[in-house]
Amino acid sequence: MATNDRGILLLQCPDRPGVVASVSGFLYEHGGDIIRADEHRDPDSDTYFMRVEWGLDGFQLPPPDFAREFEPVAREFGMQWRIAKSSDRPGVAIFVSKSGHCLADLLYRHQIGELPCQIKLVIGNHDELRKLTEFYGIRFELVRGTPKGEVEGSLHRLLDESAIDLVVLARYMQILSDVLVGQYAGRMINVHHSFLPAFVGAKPYHRSYERGVKLIGATSHYVTAQLDEGPIIEQDVVRVSHRDSLESIVRKGGDAERAVLTRAVRWHVENRIMVHGNKTVVFS
Amino acid sequence: MATNDRGILLLQCPDRPGVVASVSGFLYEHGGDIIRADEHRDPDSDTYFMRVEWGLDGFQLPPPDFAREFEPVAREFGMQWRIAKSSDRPGVAIFVSKSGHCLADLLYRHQIGELPCQIKLVIGNHDELRKLTEFYGIRFELVRGTPKGEVEGSLHRLLDESAIDLVVLARYMQILSDVLVGQYAGRMINVHHSFLPAFVGAKPYHRSYERGVKLIGATSHYVTAQLDEGPIIEQDVVRVSHRDSLESIVRKGGDAERAVLTRAVRWHVENRIMVHGNKTVVFS
Amino acid sequence: MATNDRGILLLQCPDRPGVVASVSGFLYEHGGDIIRADEHRDPDSDTYFMRVEWGLDGFQLPPPDFAREFEPVAREFGMQWRIAKSSDRPGVAIFVSKSGHCLADLLYRHQIGELPCQIKLVIGNHDELRKLTEFYGIRFELVRGTPKGEVEGSLHRLLDESAIDLVVLARYMQILSDVLVGQYAGRMINVHHSFLPAFVGAKPYHRSYERGVKLIGATSHYVTAQLDEGPIIEQDVVRVSHRDSLESIVRKGGDAERAVLTRAVRWHVENRIMVHGNKTVVFS
Amino acid sequence: MATNDRGILLLQCPDRPGVVASVSGFLYEHGGDIIRADEHRDPDSDTYFMRVEWGLDGFQLPPPDFAREFEPVAREFGMQWRIAKSSDRPGVAIFVSKSGHCLADLLYRHQIGELPCQIKLVIGNHDELRKLTEFYGIRFELVRGTPKGEVEGSLHRLLDESAIDLVVLARYMQILSDVLVGQYAGRMINVHHSFLPAFVGAKPYHRSYERGVKLIGATSHYVTAQLDEGPIIEQDVVRVSHRDSLESIVRKGGDAERAVLTRAVRWHVENRIMVHGNKTVVFS
Repeated sequence: MATNDRGILLLQCPDRPGVVASVSGFLYEHGGDIIRADEHRDPDSDTYFMRVEWGLDGFQLPPPDFAREFEPVAREFGMQWRIAKSSDRPGVAIFVSKSGHCLADLLYRHQIGELPCQIKLVIGNHDELRKLTEFYGIRFELVRGTPKGEVEGSLHRLLDESAIDLVVLARYMQILSDVLVGQYAGRMINVHHSFLPAFVGAKPYHRSYERGVKLIGATSHYVTAQLDEGPIIEQDVVRVSHRDSLESIVRKGGDAERAVLTRAVRWHVENRIMVHGNKTVVFS
Repeated sequence: MATNDRGILLLQCPDRPGVVASVSGFLYEHGGDIIRADEHRDPDSDTYFMRVEWGLDGFQLPPPDFAREFEPVAREFGMQWRIAKSSDRPGVAIFVSKSGHCLADLLYRHQIGELPCQIKLVIGNHDELRKLTEFYGIRFELVRGTPKGEVEGSLHRLLDESAIDLVVLARYMQILSDVLVGQYAGRMINVHHSFLPAFVGAKPYHRSYERGVKLIGATSHYVTAQLDEGPIIEQDVVRVSHRDSLESIVRKGGDAERAVLTRAVRWHVENRIMVHGNKTVVFS
Repeated sequence: MATNDRGILLLQCPDRPGVVASVSGFLYEHGGDIIRADEHRDPDSDTYFMRVEWGLDGFQLPPPDFAREFEPVAREFGMQWRIAKSSDRPGVAIFVSKSGHCLADLLYRHQIGELPCQIKLVIGNHDELRKLTEFYGIRFELVRGTPKGEVEGSLHRLLDESAIDLVVLARYMQILSDVLVGQYAGRMINVHHSFLPAFVGAKPYHRSYERGVKLIGATSHYVTAQLDEGPIIEQDVVRVSHRDSLESIVRKGGDAERAVLTRAVRWHVENRIMVHGNKTVVFS
Repeated sequence: MATNDRGILLLQCPDRPGVVASVSGFLYEHGGDIIRADEHRDPDSDTYFMRVEWGLDGFQLPPPDFAREFEPVAREFGMQWRIAKSSDRPGVAIFVSKSGHCLADLLYRHQIGELPCQIKLVIGNHDELRKLTEFYGIRFELVRGTPKGEVEGSLHRLLDESAIDLVVLARYMQILSDVLVGQYAGRMINVHHSFLPAFVGAKPYHRSYERGVKLIGATSHYVTAQLDEGPIIEQDVVRVSHRDSLESIVRKGGDAERAVLTRAVRWHVENRIMVHGNKTVVFS
C-alpha cells in the first residue's frame, strides 16, 4: 500500500571525500528515492553534516534492519547518525509559569496540525494556564516550589511516565536542576527574551529599556548547565523607539518570543537541527 | 600545485531515483571532493535541480574532458547541465540612465572584490554617470537614442566586442529590442522599483504613493519580452508611512533597489540561479 | 478622585496657521494636560491632521460640554473632529469562515488585555470556530448563506442588537452587501492575504506561488465597495523561496495576516487611525 | 522673497502643562506657520521633549532676535533649547581606517544631495581611502599613530581649522582621547559592528561567529568616554545561518553598518536627535 511516509537520516562525521556518494548510493540500492538532501561542511572543525529525506514507499529496509545494513557505511566514515520517520510524533512537555502567549501559540498550532508532535503535558509552577491548556485537551499539572528534592522527583516522574522526548520551556521562570537539564541535553528548548548574548540573565526587557536599544529580540536555544549559553536555534527582533514604554516593549517582545520558540519546536520535531559544539546547524 | 579552485555543476532533469547517487558517484570516481551540494525538487513539474561544488585540486577531469565523460550520465537522466569554475570572472555590462545609486553600489563592491565578475563596460543613454564609472577604471560608452536601427547596432557591437556574458539594467529607463533581450535570455537582469507584480510598468513610486501602501519594494528579475514579467530573482521591501513624501519614498526605495540588484548579480555570477519556466531556483 | 483616563481628540481640517496653538491653548485653558500630540500635514491636499491625548483628571469639560465649547474653534478652522476616552471599549464583531489563526490571535490578546475593546460577537458562515470562540466566553452565531435578503437581515439585526462599533473580517470568505459595507464605512476592517495591490481578488497565495515571488504579504484595510481597494492600514511580508510549497506559503502567510490584522484592530480601537481619501494616517 | 527655509526648534524641559500651548502660541504670534511638530514625554524622569519645524517665510523673528524673545518662555518652563535652520549645512569630518564601505556610502549620498551637511574632511590613519575621498572632491588627511601628544594635536588643529560640527567614526579602528571625545560630546557618532550591548569591544564579528548567533547587527551611537556605551541612535540586523563563514558575516554586517551609520548622520544633521541621559529621542 502506498504511503507518503519518509525516512530521515541525520549524520555528522569528519569531512572526507565520498560521503554523499556512499550515503546516496546506499539509499538508492535499497530502493530509497531521495526527496530532499541538505548538507553542510564546518571548515573550522572539518566536520560534515547531512540530512536526507527519502520516500519509504518501496524502500526495502524497515527501521530495525536499517542500523544493521547502514553500520558498515557509518563505521567507514566515523559517523554519528540517527534516523526518524516523517510520521513520528515525538512526545512534548511544555513548562510554563504565568505568561501564556508562547503556550497559546504552541497549543493552537499543534491543534491545527502545524506542529508534527504530540503535546502530552503542560507543567506549570502556577495554575493560571490550566484552563487554556485543558481547553486544547492537554493534561495540565501544577508543580509548585523550587525544582529540588521532592519537586524534582515529581518532574522526573511526570516526564518519564509520559515518555517525553522534548521539553519546551515556554517562559518558565525557574531554573531546573543540572540533572534534569543533563537528561534532556539537546532535547530541552528555552526561549530567552533578549537577543543573546545581549542581556543574559534576569529582566532583559528592563535592561533593554534602560539601555535605550532600538531593537529588542528573543532567542530560542537548547538548554545547558550554563544559563542562556546553550546552542542558539533561532533569533528575531522587533523595532522599538523612545516612544515605547516598558509595557509596550514586553508586548512587542512577546511576539518575537513566540515566533522564535514556535520555529525552534517545529524544526526540532521535524528533525532539522543538529548540534555541533555550542552551535546549531538548522536545515530549515 | 594546490589550488582553491572549484568546479560547479548545475543541472536539471526529470525527477527520477538515483540522480544524487549517480552524480556524486561520478565526481567521487574522478577524484572530486564535494564541497557543497544543493538540490531541489519541483513537485508541480516533477523536475529535479542540483548544484554541486567540488575541489578541482586532485580532480582528474579537465573541463574539455568533463563533457565527454559526463555525457552518459546526463543522457541517462535527460539532464540539461552546465559547468563553471569558481575562478571564472564573467564579463558584465551595466546599462544606466541618470540614477547612479545602483551603479555606485555595484562598482564599489566590484572594486573591493565582493562580486566575482569583470565589469567591462557601462553603457549610458545619458552622460551623467561617466565620471563615477571612469573613477573605478571602467569604460563608459554613451549610446543615446531609442535602441533601434543604428543605436541597436551600436549596442550589439559593444556587447560583442567586450564578450559580455551578463547584462545588468541598473535603472536603465529604456526598453530594449526583443532581439537583444532574446540574445541575452537568462543573462539580462533588471531591477524594477516595485514589489512585483504590484505596480508593473511606469512610475511605480508615484503609484505606491497614491495608493497609500505601507511598504514599498524592489524586484530584480531576468528580462523577457514581457515587460516586468520575467523570472523573479530577489525582492525586498522598506517600511513607509503617511509621513513619507514621494521624495523620501524614492530615496528609501533606492536602498531596496540596490540591495536586490546587487544580490541578483552576485548570485548570477556565482552560478547560484537556475531558471525554470517563469520561476527561479536560487541556491543562495 | 484621581483617574488615569485620557481624552483623545482627532481632527482634520484645511492646513492653516494657528491650529496647534488654538487646540493646545483650548485644552490648556480647561485644565487639560497634553500627554501626547501627533500631527501630520498632507501637502497634496493641504490638509492638517491632529491627534491629541490629555489627562482627564482635572480637566474641566465633561464630554457633553466639550462639543459646545470646542465648536467655535472647530468652526474657525473648518475641522472635522471627534473625541473619545482611553477607557472606552468599543464593541467589536468578528466575521469568520473556517480559518481560525486570525481569530485565535484576536481572542487571546483580547483576553489578556492587549486590545482595548469588547469583542461581543463572532459570526461564522461555518461552525468550525464556535468552540474556540466560546472557550473565550464570546457569543458565536452561525449565519450561513449568501449575505442577501434574509441572511443580510440577520447580520444587520445581530450587529444592531449588540451595538457593534467595529466589524472585523478575519478571513471571512464572503462578500458583504454594499449596504452593510456602507453602514460600517471606516469601521469595517478586512485582512487580505497578499501585499496589495499585488494579487487583488481570489486565491492570492496560489497566484504568489505561480508567479514565483520571493516575499509574500498581507494587508489590513478598511472595506469599501471596491473589493480590496479600500484605505490600507498596515502591511507586512514574509520571505519565501523556491523551497516553499503552496502549503508552507499558506502557513507563513498566516503569520503575516494575523500580525497586520491585530495591529489594525489595536490602532483602530485606540483611535489612532484617520482616513483621508483612500489613504490612512496612522499615529501609531 | 519667498523661501522654503524652515526654522527648527529643539527643546527639553520638566514636563508641565502648557508647554505645547506656549511654544505654538509663541510661533503663531510671530508669524511662524508650524509645518511639523513632534513631542515626547519620558515618564521616568518627567521630561518633555519637543521638535518643531516652521516656515521662515513670513516669520518675523530673525535668529538673532529669536533668543531674546523666546527667553521668557524658555525660562518659565526651565527649557534647554536650540534652534537651527533646515538650510544649515553643518561641517562634517569622517575618520576612517582601511574599510571603505561606510565612507563610500556617505560620500555618494552626500554628493547626490541626500545628506544635508558639508563633508569637509576625511581623516585616515591609513592612506587606502584617499583616492575614493578625493574622487568626491573632499580633502583627505593622513594622520598616523596613536592619537596622543603630537597626533592628538594634529587632529584638534584639523577639526578646528575646518570648523567641524560633527565627527563621524566610519569604522575608525583607534580610540580617541577623552579630551577629543569630550569636546565633541553629542557631536561624535560611531558605528559599532554588533548589536549592542552584545559583543562590546574588539572583534564582534569573530565573537558572533563563535557564539553561533542567527542574526548579526550594527549600532550607531554617540561616542562617550565609555567604549561602546554611549547613547544608541540606530540599530539594525541581518540574518545569518550556519552556512555563513566569518567572511560572509563581515560582508553582510557591512551592509547593516553603513545603513545605521548613514541614518544616524542624516538624523543628526537634520536636527532630529535629542540626547537624554544615555538614551536618544529620535524624531525620525
